[in-house]
Amino acid sequence: KSFVDVAPESDFPIQNIPFGIFSTEADATPRVGTAIGEFVVDLAALAAEGLFSCCSTFGPEATAAFQSTTLNHYMSLGRPAWTEARRRIQQLLSIDEPTLRDNEALRARVLIHRTGVSMHMPARIGDYTDFYSSKEHATNVGIMFRGKDNALMPNWLHLPVGYHGRASSVVVTGTPLTRPSGQVLPMDAQVPVFSASKQVDIELEVAFLVGPSNKLGQPVPIERAHDHIFGLLLMNDWSARDIQRWEYVPLGPFLAKNFGTTVSPWVVTLEALEPFLTNGPAQTDPAPMPYLTYNGPATYDIQLEALLKPKESADYQRICLTNFKHLYWSMRQQLAHHTINGCNLQTGDLLASGTISGPTPESFGSLLELTWRGTNPIQFPDDVKRTFLQDGDSVVIRGAAQGDGFRIGFGDCEGTILPAVAGLNQ
Amino acid sequence: KSFVDVAPESDFPIQNIPFGIFSTEADATPRVGTAIGEFVVDLAALAAEGLFSCCSTFGPEATAAFQSTTLNHYMSLGRPAWTEARRRIQQLLSIDEPTLRDNEALRARVLIHRTGVSMHMPARIGDYTDFYSSKEHATNVGIMFRGKDNALMPNWLHLPVGYHGRASSVVVTGTPLTRPSGQVLPMDAQVPVFSASKQVDIELEVAFLVGPSNKLGQPVPIERAHDHIFGLLLMNDWSARDIQRWEYVPLGPFLAKNFGTTVSPWVVTLEALEPFLTNGPAQTDPAPMPYLTYNGPATYDIQLEALLKPKESADYQRICLTNFKHLYWSMRQQLAHHTINGCNLQTGDLLASGTISGPTPESFGSLLELTWRGTNPIQFPDDVKRTFLQDGDSVVIRGAAQGDGFRIGFGDCEGTILPAVAGLNQ
Ligand SMILES: [Ca+2]
Ligand SMILES: [Ca+2]
Ligand SMILES: [Mg+2]
Ligand SMILES: [Mg+2]
Ligand code: NI
Repeated sequence: KSFVDVAPESDFPIQNIPFGIFSTEADATPRVGTAIGEFVVDLAALAAEGLFSCCSTFGPEATAAFQSTTLNHYMSLGRPAWTEARRRIQQLLSIDEPTLRDNEALRARVLIHRTGVSMHMPARIGDYTDFYSSKEHATNVGIMFRGKDNALMPNWLHLPVGYHGRASSVVVTGTPLTRPSGQVLPMDAQVPVFSASKQVDIELEVAFLVGPSNKLGQPVPIERAHDHIFGLLLMNDWSARDIQRWEYVPLGPFLAKNFGTTVSPWVVTLEALEPFLTNGPAQTDPAPMPYLTYNGPATYDIQLEALLKPKESADYQRICLTNFKHLYWSMRQQLAHHTINGCNLQTGDLLASGTISGPTPESFGSLLELTWRGTNPIQFPDDVKRTFLQDGDSVVIRGAAQGDGFRIGFGDCEGTILPAVAGLNQ
Repeated sequence: KSFVDVAPESDFPIQNIPFGIFSTEADATPRVGTAIGEFVVDLAALAAEGLFSCCSTFGPEATAAFQSTTLNHYMSLGRPAWTEARRRIQQLLSIDEPTLRDNEALRARVLIHRTGVSMHMPARIGDYTDFYSSKEHATNVGIMFRGKDNALMPNWLHLPVGYHGRASSVVVTGTPLTRPSGQVLPMDAQVPVFSASKQVDIELEVAFLVGPSNKLGQPVPIERAHDHIFGLLLMNDWSARDIQRWEYVPLGPFLAKNFGTTVSPWVVTLEALEPFLTNGPAQTDPAPMPYLTYNGPATYDIQLEALLKPKESADYQRICLTNFKHLYWSMRQQLAHHTINGCNLQTGDLLASGTISGPTPESFGSLLELTWRGTNPIQFPDDVKRTFLQDGDSVVIRGAAQGDGFRIGFGDCEGTILPAVAGLNQ
């Protein structure tokens, strides 16, 4: 328990200790912080006070790691340093520890109410990979585009299908995104037209950030995969379905995705999620190859929801309620697969789950599925309806693991769609 | 003409002035250099001498730009600074200019014979995109996998198809690469097996590096596309065909490509290539959309070749002779297309052409095409044959624009395939 008040419905109890990059009006330099209740804790300032010098592994790195403008330095240190730092932060915030509790001047400097804080991209992302690991999502999309009998591709149950995404356009929560324009093929047409996308969609996802790198040519065995995973983020992989449909054969989605991808401000560590470890779906038909086989729980029970606020509305309305544990392929399997050919993952790389759909229609993670390709609009108050997103619509993704009297959350992953660029030379 | 001797067959006359990152035994810090004849010119040292202070735009940036460990700073400056720096470097190397010519001590410090130099990655690549812009290559691959009637996909003639590749595994010439392992589907089988790839291939490509960035949400019009292109590299996009065939539906190639991609050490600027500007193939049926339409020559006459040295052989033998100008889609079109949805390209991004195949069988840019899917092996001396690459085989890609008595080249883009990792948990 902390001396800082934390409401039971807060994302940020002392059991969480997420990491993020923040700045304030008084000090515009981005730096590392954690969140507790309504407050952001300035970890750079705590390091400058020498309050991590008692940590044998982490101590010598504390100032450089926490005074950095990204989490990359901290994430590169590896689990022993992370564990030490986490314990020390929890101790400093504990109700039993006087160091911070009884030092009013220090407290005033390092505990900043979140209303006075700007959040930044938590990491400098080198490469971003998006997987496609929800069987329900892959099946739904397959039925829509190829029919019920060929819904899942032959490779899908054998390996975690994934593709490279665009790192430069990953943005932090609150960044508005411009509706993309491009080539689309009208219904029944043979020739494409130029248009602003009419089918801007969301994809509710969870991503993880890579901690220590592996060298080119050196696969990471699945047993050691977790040593390379620092923590998790919520993610919205905005997708322009009409652009995607025309462009994606045979090399995959490109402009339909790379106009923007939104992540949550806080990275929740595997340590914080450990009480919520659980088993994913059974994998027996077929059983995965040995390099993808891990005995033991490898996923987490994290409830996830997407909410939409049409521009005509004052309030968000939930459109999806799903769970991270529905995913067929685990993060361990994704990381082992990604490196089996020797591909070098680097500190700060972002590996995302793919759209997380569950078994029931309310648990589908995209508008494509929720409205079944636009045929079944979602109803909002005052007779407002949506299939895909309109200009001015906002979407927020939230998620938390629910403990006994506390929850481990990520903060909001939010974005608003702005009108397309006017006057493009079509 | 330079006071440095340059053989007519050298890649690096005074008309070239390519940029690269080098270090020496005496000074292991990577820094910016250019090449002339057999020598590397230490541009960081020239900047430290104040020899760019006469440049009004570039001068104030010269030290920071040339003492950097990558070209990113220099590439971010834009064309006015590049033009100024290029002219000044040509002046300093000119036979008519005494500054360097007559200063023996300075010459000894800044002109380093290339045998004493290590070359490094020229840029810190943020994102890497690979296009698929050779009509002949797309047609060949289409015929092999889908038959003659469906060879080109419906979108291919309307837009430059491309996909995101892996930035972390782009390596500089001379870096050996480990044969990738992974899932492959044996002929006529339903279930994949784990194996080292038996079909490691090359793809002869040319890539360009992005200079100044564009902001997220702001497309670059095709008329201004060249302002964002710094220069060109040779590239080998190594590809494991058996892994690719099993994994790539529906999201594109992934582990088949991201085990390694090799680039040449020297970046040749658009200024140096300007005398070789030429028209690409006619685009009339269909004509491209207005955002992809540019009137004027937009490609370059650059002869390209790939050579293979089987591990049993002492010498390289040419296996492909092709030309950059065969590409259907130009770099201008690629860049305009990549940003039409607002995607933000950043300084140092790498955009590659895709395999450059020409109209004749000798001009095919991959072993897949040269051996027609392995059915027609290539003959080497002493009855050595190859379909795909064996362990210990080396491949080099070379290229140059041929002027009147001089050539503008890139240096070698070379790599060797090492044996697969042993003892993987299959
Ligand atoms: Ca996705
Ligand atoms: Ca390629
Ligand atoms: Mg996206
Ligand atoms: Mg490659
Ligand atoms: Ni990248």
